[in-house]
Amino acid sequence: METRQLKQEAIALHKKGKMELKSTVPLTTEYDMSLAYTPGVAEPCKLIAEDKSAVYDQTIKGNLVAIVTDGSAVLGLGDIGPEAALPVMEGKAVLFKEFAGVDAVPLCLDTKNVEEIIQTVKAIAPTFGGINLEDIAAPRCFEIEKRLQEELNIPVFHDDQHGTAIVVLAALINALHCVRKDASAQIVINGAGAAGLSIASLLLEAGYSNVTLVSLEGIVQQEEAWLNPRQREIAEKTNPKQLTGGLNEAIKGADVFIGVSGPKALSQNHIEMMNSDAIVFALANPVPEIYPEEAKAAGAAVVGTGRSDFANQINNVLAFPGIFRGALDSRAGAITTSMKLAAATAIASLVETVEAEHILPSVFDKRIASVVAEAVASEAKEKQPSY
Amino acid sequence: METRQLKQEAIALHKKGKMELKSTVPLTTEYDMSLAYTPGVAEPCKLIAEDKSAVYDQTIKGNLVAIVTDGSAVLGLGDIGPEAALPVMEGKAVLFKEFAGVDAVPLCLDTKNVEEIIQTVKAIAPTFGGINLEDIAAPRCFEIEKRLQEELNIPVFHDDQHGTAIVVLAALINALHCVRKDASAQIVINGAGAAGLSIASLLLEAGYSNVTLVSLEGIVQQEEAWLNPRQREIAEKTNPKQLTGGLNEAIKGADVFIGVSGPKALSQNHIEMMNSDAIVFALANPVPEIYPEEAKAAGAAVVGTGRSDFANQINNVLAFPGIFRGALDSRAGAITTSMKLAAATAIASLVETVEAEHILPSVFDKRIASVVAEAVASEAKEKQPSY
Repeated sequence: METRQLKQEAIALHKKGKMELKSTVPLTTEYDMSLAYTPGVAEPCKLIAEDKSAVYDQTIKGNLVAIVTDGSAVLGLGDIGPEAALPVMEGKAVLFKEFAGVDAVPLCLDTKNVEEIIQTVKAIAPTFGGINLEDIAAPRCFEIEKRLQEELNIPVFHDDQHGTAIVVLAALINALHCVRKDASAQIVINGAGAAGLSIASLLLEAGYSNVTLVSLEGIVQQEEAWLNPRQREIAEKTNPKQLTGGLNEAIKGADVFIGVSGPKALSQNHIEMMNSDAIVFALANPVPEIYPEEAKAAGAAVVGTGRSDFANQINNVLAFPGIFRGALDSRAGAITTSMKLAAATAIASLVETVEAEHILPSVFDKRIASVVAEAVASEAKEKQPSY
Repeated sequence: METRQLKQEAIALHKKGKMELKSTVPLTTEYDMSLAYTPGVAEPCKLIAEDKSAVYDQTIKGNLVAIVTDGSAVLGLGDIGPEAALPVMEGKAVLFKEFAGVDAVPLCLDTKNVEEIIQTVKAIAPTFGGINLEDIAAPRCFEIEKRLQEELNIPVFHDDQHGTAIVVLAALINALHCVRKDASAQIVINGAGAAGLSIASLLLEAGYSNVTLVSLEGIVQQEEAWLNPRQREIAEKTNPKQLTGGLNEAIKGADVFIGVSGPKALSQNHIEMMNSDAIVFALANPVPEIYPEEAKAAGAAVVGTGRSDFANQINNVLAFPGIFRGALDSRAGAITTSMKLAAATAIASLVETVEAEHILPSVFDKRIASVVAEAVASEAKEKQPSY
């Protein structure tokens, strides 16, 4: 596609936004009005005032998610502010609706202060059944998510971390199946920001024991002074061979490369240093760590990217709609590790015949959201909040 | 209508809420996705990052209103909390859409602290083209609205105050016309909370010079110790005859009674003490200060209530949809007094043949929102915010 044309079409498409709010009840007669507004509306109000849990039955709360950002880490554009982040959050909102019937509202915040973000989300929480944090820079995204999940009784989910990790795990399950390797595979994650750290955590939880994280400063290992608290935590559980150095050292003999770093970060030489039947997930967008053709020429057996124009698109939209659908349907108080693992397994299971060029379902596979939602909901049982 | 039936129908109608979010763009192909989400969505983001005002062109902001409440003064139910307030806010949201095409999102806040409410609304403001404050108790509603309007460059409008005042003024214009009285009419407002104070302010701005406010403590006058700051301010401009006492003293010889107080607050004896051709607006809901039949039997010439089952329903829905439509269309930074006066005049003008039983248009008159919006927008000209 011609880039200039895409730009112009995108700008035309986004004119006045991409979403609207609609009534689901009739409002054309006095009687309609007397039910939907005064005096009839007092009845659901009184029910909820007596028993707060009725809010899930008598309002939109149980199907409504807030997409909260401070606009500090938007796409590859970085800290572009809350107004400029709004098109992305609207886009996410329409994907929520299209893929899982979840109603979602963008909330772009005019603050980057951790406490102010936490206080704001806590203040608006009564209206929502879940909070999707989006495009908030590391490391403050960790503190914000942790605190909010502790202090709220609805799920709080930073999609850039967990959505990515879940889809990477789904892709990895099938890619390893392709090359007949198992959970002992040597895995290198390039990029130790929000996504890289979350992928590492989920892979460890899933039983992958040989994971090494590499940041621009080098291999994440316990002795390093530059580690942030979250990196320090993960350093204790990763890099089992106690490698030192950077990507060149980590990549030797690795079975899997997962890039959440930047364009062209991986060379053909790197791939040649990997074990045979290498798996390469090059997720930098739009320019990946290495293009699939180059990776395969250097010997990679399975290649995935974040792009829709190559095979094996590793795309969060495979995960977040179904995850929230399942969490809302089960009225879960949080999205736990077991719910995330169930989501990844469910996504992987949707590929009937796993092949090197087909390790994930298409985002347009209509079964995804409901299969993921069921898996998530079944893990959520008996973990519901008090109301 | 049978009350029990209304209750049951209302509860059935409110099941799972009354609204949904819908995409206004197609999302069925890879190409659709590449425009609405990555990579195409980067284009509107970049436009807005360069020029913040593009947010009005490239997102929903310019048509999106937050309906913000702390749930502290909901209908006649009082302080029922944010969850129990949500059905009312959803109802308001669907009225915004139905009557004026405005997209509105309920935000029920888990705080009643003035500073926290202000900070929360400021934090979420980048997403919205306007803020409708709703059902927040007096006197904190005054401080919250004033501070927010000073600190934000989008309109902030407490509908319980100004929406009510605008529709009362519209009704008064036509009611006085009916009885051939003018702006020198002696007006008593019973109730000195948010609505009463706002009605008094707008009537003074509209040139009605003889206004007396009465609260449960008595006539609002400068010497009283129990006045709150807003009451003290209005006391300087009202009660020109320097009456003392309560409703019994204020009502003698009055031309107009405006009740924003409570059920049965006005007796037939009171009306008999009023001037001939008395105008009675009994707005307590659902049980008015006096029923229309009783008021007329005691000599009232024109009677209005808040109810749809009597003639002359004084209902905020005549005002707020068109006011926000006009403010959004003109990208006004605030809803000024002249915009409010223009809205009231526009509403009054829609009644072609004014009669005692027909002083206001029907809420289903399709012209209302656009006529009000045009009047509001024309007053907003040259008062736009910097972006």
